[in-house]
Amino acid sequence: MPLTDLSLAECLAYRPVVPEPPDLDAFWAATLEEGDAGGDPVGRFEPVRTGLALVDTFDVGFAGFGGEEVRGWLHLPAGTSAPLPCVVQFQGYGEGRGLAWQQQFWAVAGYAHFVMDTRGQGWGSLPGATPDGAARAAGEPSPITWGLRSPHDYYYRRVFVDAVRACGVLGGHPMVDADAVVVTGASQGGGIALAAAALVPGLLGAMVDVPFLADVRRAVDVCGVPPYADLATVLQHRPWMAEAALQTLSYFDVAALASRAAAPALFSIAMMDPVCPPSTCFAAYHRYGGPKQLRVYEFADHAGGEATHLGEQAGWLASLLASR
Amino acid sequence: MPLTDLSLAECLAYRPVVPEPPDLDAFWAATLEEGDAGGDPVGRFEPVRTGLALVDTFDVGFAGFGGEEVRGWLHLPAGTSAPLPCVVQFQGYGEGRGLAWQQQFWAVAGYAHFVMDTRGQGWGSLPGATPDGAARAAGEPSPITWGLRSPHDYYYRRVFVDAVRACGVLGGHPMVDADAVVVTGASQGGGIALAAAALVPGLLGAMVDVPFLADVRRAVDVCGVPPYADLATVLQHRPWMAEAALQTLSYFDVAALASRAAAPALFSIAMMDPVCPPSTCFAAYHRYGGPKQLRVYEFADHAGGEATHLGEQAGWLASLLASR
Amino acid sequence: MPLTDLSLAECLAYRPVVPEPPDLDAFWAATLEEGDAGGDPVGRFEPVRTGLALVDTFDVGFAGFGGEEVRGWLHLPAGTSAPLPCVVQFQGYGEGRGLAWQQQFWAVAGYAHFVMDTRGQGWGSLPGATPDGAARAAGEPSPITWGLRSPHDYYYRRVFVDAVRACGVLGGHPMVDADAVVVTGASQGGGIALAAAALVPGLLGAMVDVPFLADVRRAVDVCGVPPYADLATVLQHRPWMAEAALQTLSYFDVAALASRAAAPALFSIAMMDPVCPPSTCFAAYHRYGGPKQLRVYEFADHAGGEATHLGEQAGWLASLLASR
Amino acid sequence: MPLTDLSLAECLAYRPVVPEPPDLDAFWAATLEEGDAGGDPVGRFEPVRTGLALVDTFDVGFAGFGGEEVRGWLHLPAGTSAPLPCVVQFQGYGEGRGLAWQQQFWAVAGYAHFVMDTRGQGWGSLPGATPDGAARAAGEPSPITWGLRSPHDYYYRRVFVDAVRACGVLGGHPMVDADAVVVTGASQGGGIALAAAALVPGLLGAMVDVPFLADVRRAVDVCGVPPYADLATVLQHRPWMAEAALQTLSYFDVAALASRAAAPALFSIAMMDPVCPPSTCFAAYHRYGGPKQLRVYEFADHAGGEATHLGEQAGWLASLLASR
Amino acid sequence: MPLTDLSLAECLAYRPVVPEPPDLDAFWAATLEEGDAGGDPVGRFEPVRTGLALVDTFDVGFAGFGGEEVRGWLHLPAGTSAPLPCVVQFQGYGEGRGLAWQQQFWAVAGYAHFVMDTRGQGWGSLPGATPDGAARAAGEPSPITWGLRSPHDYYYRRVFVDAVRACGVLGGHPMVDADAVVVTGASQGGGIALAAAALVPGLLGAMVDVPFLADVRRAVDVCGVPPYADLATVLQHRPWMAEAALQTLSYFDVAALASRAAAPALFSIAMMDPVCPPSTCFAAYHRYGGPKQLRVYEFADHAGGEATHLGEQAGWLASLLASR
Amino acid sequence: MPLTDLSLAECLAYRPVVPEPPDLDAFWAATLEEGDAGGDPVGRFEPVRTGLALVDTFDVGFAGFGGEEVRGWLHLPAGTSAPLPCVVQFQGYGEGRGLAWQQQFWAVAGYAHFVMDTRGQGWGSLPGATPDGAARAAGEPSPITWGLRSPHDYYYRRVFVDAVRACGVLGGHPMVDADAVVVTGASQGGGIALAAAALVPGLLGAMVDVPFLADVRRAVDVCGVPPYADLATVLQHRPWMAEAALQTLSYFDVAALASRAAAPALFSIAMMDPVCPPSTCFAAYHRYGGPKQLRVYEFADHAGGEATHLGEQAGWLASLLASR
Repeated sequence: MPLTDLSLAECLAYRPVVPEPPDLDAFWAATLEEGDAGGDPVGRFEPVRTGLALVDTFDVGFAGFGGEEVRGWLHLPAGTSAPLPCVVQFQGYGEGRGLAWQQQFWAVAGYAHFVMDTRGQGWGSLPGATPDGAARAAGEPSPITWGLRSPHDYYYRRVFVDAVRACGVLGGHPMVDADAVVVTGASQGGGIALAAAALVPGLLGAMVDVPFLADVRRAVDVCGVPPYADLATVLQHRPWMAEAALQTLSYFDVAALASRAAAPALFSIAMMDPVCPPSTCFAAYHRYGGPKQLRVYEFADHAGGEATHLGEQAGWLASLLASR
Repeated sequence: MPLTDLSLAECLAYRPVVPEPPDLDAFWAATLEEGDAGGDPVGRFEPVRTGLALVDTFDVGFAGFGGEEVRGWLHLPAGTSAPLPCVVQFQGYGEGRGLAWQQQFWAVAGYAHFVMDTRGQGWGSLPGATPDGAARAAGEPSPITWGLRSPHDYYYRRVFVDAVRACGVLGGHPMVDADAVVVTGASQGGGIALAAAALVPGLLGAMVDVPFLADVRRAVDVCGVPPYADLATVLQHRPWMAEAALQTLSYFDVAALASRAAAPALFSIAMMDPVCPPSTCFAAYHRYGGPKQLRVYEFADHAGGEATHLGEQAGWLASLLASR
Repeated sequence: MPLTDLSLAECLAYRPVVPEPPDLDAFWAATLEEGDAGGDPVGRFEPVRTGLALVDTFDVGFAGFGGEEVRGWLHLPAGTSAPLPCVVQFQGYGEGRGLAWQQQFWAVAGYAHFVMDTRGQGWGSLPGATPDGAARAAGEPSPITWGLRSPHDYYYRRVFVDAVRACGVLGGHPMVDADAVVVTGASQGGGIALAAAALVPGLLGAMVDVPFLADVRRAVDVCGVPPYADLATVLQHRPWMAEAALQTLSYFDVAALASRAAAPALFSIAMMDPVCPPSTCFAAYHRYGGPKQLRVYEFADHAGGEATHLGEQAGWLASLLASR
Repeated sequence: MPLTDLSLAECLAYRPVVPEPPDLDAFWAATLEEGDAGGDPVGRFEPVRTGLALVDTFDVGFAGFGGEEVRGWLHLPAGTSAPLPCVVQFQGYGEGRGLAWQQQFWAVAGYAHFVMDTRGQGWGSLPGATPDGAARAAGEPSPITWGLRSPHDYYYRRVFVDAVRACGVLGGHPMVDADAVVVTGASQGGGIALAAAALVPGLLGAMVDVPFLADVRRAVDVCGVPPYADLATVLQHRPWMAEAALQTLSYFDVAALASRAAAPALFSIAMMDPVCPPSTCFAAYHRYGGPKQLRVYEFADHAGGEATHLGEQAGWLASLLASR
Repeated sequence: MPLTDLSLAECLAYRPVVPEPPDLDAFWAATLEEGDAGGDPVGRFEPVRTGLALVDTFDVGFAGFGGEEVRGWLHLPAGTSAPLPCVVQFQGYGEGRGLAWQQQFWAVAGYAHFVMDTRGQGWGSLPGATPDGAARAAGEPSPITWGLRSPHDYYYRRVFVDAVRACGVLGGHPMVDADAVVVTGASQGGGIALAAAALVPGLLGAMVDVPFLADVRRAVDVCGVPPYADLATVLQHRPWMAEAALQTLSYFDVAALASRAAAPALFSIAMMDPVCPPSTCFAAYHRYGGPKQLRVYEFADHAGGEATHLGEQAGWLASLLASR
Repeated sequence: MPLTDLSLAECLAYRPVVPEPPDLDAFWAATLEEGDAGGDPVGRFEPVRTGLALVDTFDVGFAGFGGEEVRGWLHLPAGTSAPLPCVVQFQGYGEGRGLAWQQQFWAVAGYAHFVMDTRGQGWGSLPGATPDGAARAAGEPSPITWGLRSPHDYYYRRVFVDAVRACGVLGGHPMVDADAVVVTGASQGGGIALAAAALVPGLLGAMVDVPFLADVRRAVDVCGVPPYADLATVLQHRPWMAEAALQTLSYFDVAALASRAAAPALFSIAMMDPVCPPSTCFAAYHRYGGPKQLRVYEFADHAGGEATHLGEQAGWLASLLASR
């Protein structure tokens, strides 16, 4: 696969104007306040039998957006008896939390590891268990288009609130060190992690890979595959809706939100990524508000730095914790 | 494109066992009764300005499944002042009723022509306006998978009821001859038309092209493209759900329902159809309970007989009306 | 689908040098004069039974290029008894006039509607009935390559003359208002409409969608699919012919001809069009000689603005007629 | 690539009923008689400079069907001064005779080697120089569809006559041994070679590779790529024409004609051929009327036995000549 | 994706004749004896720092075929101090042992877990570290073709010996229970696991998913993608080599070897697998010599039962150990 | 196919910095010296029976890199008895020398014609016969990646030495005019020809088509298909290796080596080449050290100028010889 977007030199210099609605912060403040009004702030943690001797796993339910229950898995090193730093992981497009034994890397590394389900998704090889309470409008075939008519109805409003509340719930768990919550994710998960980094005060860090939902207007022009292409398809057949849709998206563009973040972050970007064009990921990186490091994978596609980068993350996180 | 399925000779002889749950008729009787409990039985008809001199068009809303409003367009020859036979048209997968001036063939032919929106779809070149009230469960990316866990929740339960009620509402319209309601549709629309033919007593006729949702178990084995392939994808990642899913589908297989139909029907089937494999369409045709005619398009793909068949339908319908 | 060509800002500023042979106008003057020499200027109009109550349809034959009979359908609102404005429609690549009941939109809208067959094409879902009298030379697999060796032999010389004569014949029809002939078409049809707008004096208007044969030299460099790609393929294997071919094409490039047009025009261009790259359509638009309006569909592929744009056209045409 | 058709065992046993019109032989007798009426029986041979020291090449023009000039190249070993056996080669779909220095294998092998142009084709990497005199009808996009409406107009009627006359003209050339004319070709060329073997008495032999136009009705059902797929496409959009088209094709099916041949033949068939399905080639082979040998390439696609088979042919031809 | 091969009912009944050379057992006895002659039987185990707290990982080197060092990772639950059952895992085509922290499932489950590198592969997302000592012959582009000319030179002769020796070396490790060695793998890894099950006496069990190299002759006819398609491609261009190649493959067909196995086995087969056609996997399953269970995934592609099946394996393995 | 890279105007102006390691010349001097140390400098020439009367062919073996035997075919006009100019041809990626009768153009043109096998390749339609003595390392799936870790081990080090030695051996053949050795090749063969032109003093000329291995760093960024894409794939999964790999490639980039060449050269470049992007070919052309001519094929893909260019080459070579 060749370069899918600007060259590395161009990306390093790319500083787009990402449209920010004047009430962006007010929107999110109101949204979170509204979110806080509902549901049990503690969550439900039920041990599950996975047959894995080294990790204890709990089926988690907590009150997400609108108080709707959002599911996840909490993995702890077997027999954990004192609070641990916690990695909160968000999933890629179409994915859910998976089966209980599917993703345990950060627990095996010695941390509390929470995998949050993505509401209404989970149809691929990582099945999900969380519905999205909103009804299906006409003309909205996939998550990036759900509720596109207004910021209030947009799907990621609910998902970002879920993520914020997950950080809160996990921070309050007795086996989690509330001062050491780190968010992570790739693609959609990277976008959600960026949103969480912008909206959750006091995170210890963020690990963001090939993030989705950044610099969206450009992404739609540059990218020929779903999810971004689904947006183009919907607007192709409903051109009258384009202006409102772009207005909606401006409240959720993680390149805009990134400037609100303060926690240290490790980013990765892939130069041959056809799904999340590298320039759009750079837009988020350049605007990120906290201390930041970047690994560029010049020959990688949307899989990014793969196991190599996982090793980088493990080292970066260990250093971050050691430097407290 | 070559043959996508059995040869014509094999299709003509193909008589599969289509599984019918013992309570199939009871299920539908109860469903329709439940449906009848809700909503205004008359519907709302608001004239719209399309700029088309020869056809009067009305924006229709009527109480579909659960009393939820379903939209549609009613087209009448301009200045219609006496009841006309009515063609009720159902749409293909992903399609809605379209824009008011998109599909008016049967009105131009001199009939009342109703185009029913398909709830929660309408994202392609025929936009829709009807939401589907059910929330989004996890693991259900596209209509054929919505609510797959149980017959009660399955999406087409709602759609088929919408179709039944549409026939009733239109039959009650003052400019429609209640004894001359004909259903039609291609692909998903053909499947819905078959369901309507099975569930609505007293229809004058049915025109069914390359129907979807027939002989579904075989279709999933034979067909490599959506929508059937979406079913395979979901069951690939959730194998534990396959049995329940197939059980659910047995209540909606239009090859099973077809035997309940009594109205005269004109079918078309395309031998090089990669979307609705011809053998599965033949399964529905062979089991159809009413008088039936068939046009086979040996060299056609899923587009079927196209304008040629439209001409066939116009002739068949004129004869049907003339023979009353 | 992402952008297939320059960005919108770049397209709006794009003013290419489109090569014009010095004898371009002389060539067309001579060609039309030669054309006028042959054939019956009135045409043949035979009523056909379509079974459509609201529209009267006539099978038309008229003397096109070289006096060869060109076919078409004339649709009139049923019982038309006074001259109407007339929309003359040209078809896309590979298409012909279709079956008699396939395309009647403008008649349903209340106009005389003429659909001109495209000689020697009509192999797709809109079958044709008009042969192209020229013999098949070697090395010319598809219409864009037929007769490429010289302007005199080039296929579109014959087609453009057919279009000019169609406008004349229709203008002379008793049920057509000769002062209110409007041409329209998409893709190849848009190119032909532009040629007609340039070559027919006194047209009332032109509606041109995603036009083909504009800025051809650039199109071949930018576009990877037929028809433009057929040109590249032929010149790949016959590199010695490239210079003459490009010279031939310069007589038919509708971006060059567009500057000769004077009638008001409504254009549409799609920014994600892989078939007629938007920059090449803008080249024609920018050079168009008459009053002009433009609708840009930023997320559309070669299907352009679809039904939405049809509505725009209906409104534009009504206004145009009202402003007379 | 996997098997594209029946297994080898099934192919070896495959004996289809290939429909033969009752007047098949009369049709060809009349056609050839009509053909003989026109044109110079000798041909024109002009030496060309190719810069190749070992081969003398002549640009040939002879009177083909209807007396129309058909072109070709005659290659002779440099300085040939006595009659040689002659290999007459027919070309694949879309190909022409090529450039003068492109195909000289049989001359290098020591024979007279004639490469016949295919009228109206030659748009690929083997350019052609021979037009096809017939005008372009509507709805006939590629050679397999040209003139499909009737046997009299069908394109291959002209091509097969060209081939017959080429054998005659070459047999009459002073440097050719009239008793040692061998025809050869692959794909379309194999089909033409079979037709020539059936229609030209006294050929010494035929070398037929992966022949096209055999068992055509089955080929269209089995094969998903052009040229056969072009036939399906045309009949998809013109279903009313299918019966006449199949009737036309029955006069040109080389599986039918093959039974008329008497010369010894060497066939090759490829089991993974997606273009000319192996069963259809076997249909021709099994019905071939003369002594025959077969090489099956079990793992080959439409390229067949490639250079390996060329070696087989050279050996077979040498033996054939030695055994005279 | 639809069925890629026979139906489930046909697969359950499929009992092919898999050719077995008369000296098959002698060949493998001699090969293993030859293998035993070289290299250190103990292996080298060097601890590596992965940063994962719960698992101790060792970089392993042992004497594989010809005494050449083969690498792998041994993962043990951190602080293991007594022998554990051991899962020996073989990798898929193109994969190697990966990075040290990539695959640790069975260690997390509480077992010793050894991941064997596949010599000369490891170019995908699971990088490898083991060269293959043989030189590159001409005409052998990918592993399935390496050394195809003779059983003695064939690549999998070396790989299968590596696998046998890995089982021996691991069985001798102080933290491994020598009576509880289980082999596992998917695709190529499944084929290697089957070979190991046939060639290593005393294994406790085998977990075999969608195995490669079974019923190879049929696989090449049925399968259109690599690796099997690479075999077809090579034999297409070297038809003279086909007989010897098939003879070579008969010594390595795991459907033949499977009958030599005695350990209990859990198989999985996917009915929509385009890479390892299900019938060929069934051929191996049906001939497997030991007690066996099977999970069929009717809607799965080559990914098979994914995490669901991993759960099945964990349960099966726990039962197997419990029943000792 | 559209332009795959920069426009022609941009290519003509493109003067990239191609990284040259400071010891580039020393590296090659040492490499060639090392090469000269081994093997028989004369070669082995065994006549083979091809059945072609006009050309005598010899199976050649000579000492290539490390003294390993490299094979080839020498074709001479039958009965050659005095030294002739010699064309030494190198092959494309995956190709070998082919069968003895596959490529004889330059012999038919009257020259000595040597076709050199490419070690370890030859799996396509031009089979090879020369192994590559190096063992298979892990993670190196195709020739462009073999030995990528260091210049010393890199595959093309061996191939370029083979090419240099081939020129020497042929120059010493009694039927070859040692002062008239010309190298040629397309794609990989063009790259090898360029390397030979740089490393062999005293060549008469070089004919270089669409050369591979030029401006490699850019090629990997621009090109999405193998072989360049294989490089990206390998570095995607082994990002830690990228720096060393690029360092290795800098010793073999023929755009760097081209400046060392002095013989007159005829280049061809195709503007729609997706395999060897035209800008990278221009990089080599612009830097070529000797007198040079260029043919640009503006509409050609990687097949370049095909038979047309072969004619150009024949004329250019004749002139070159005539001008001595």
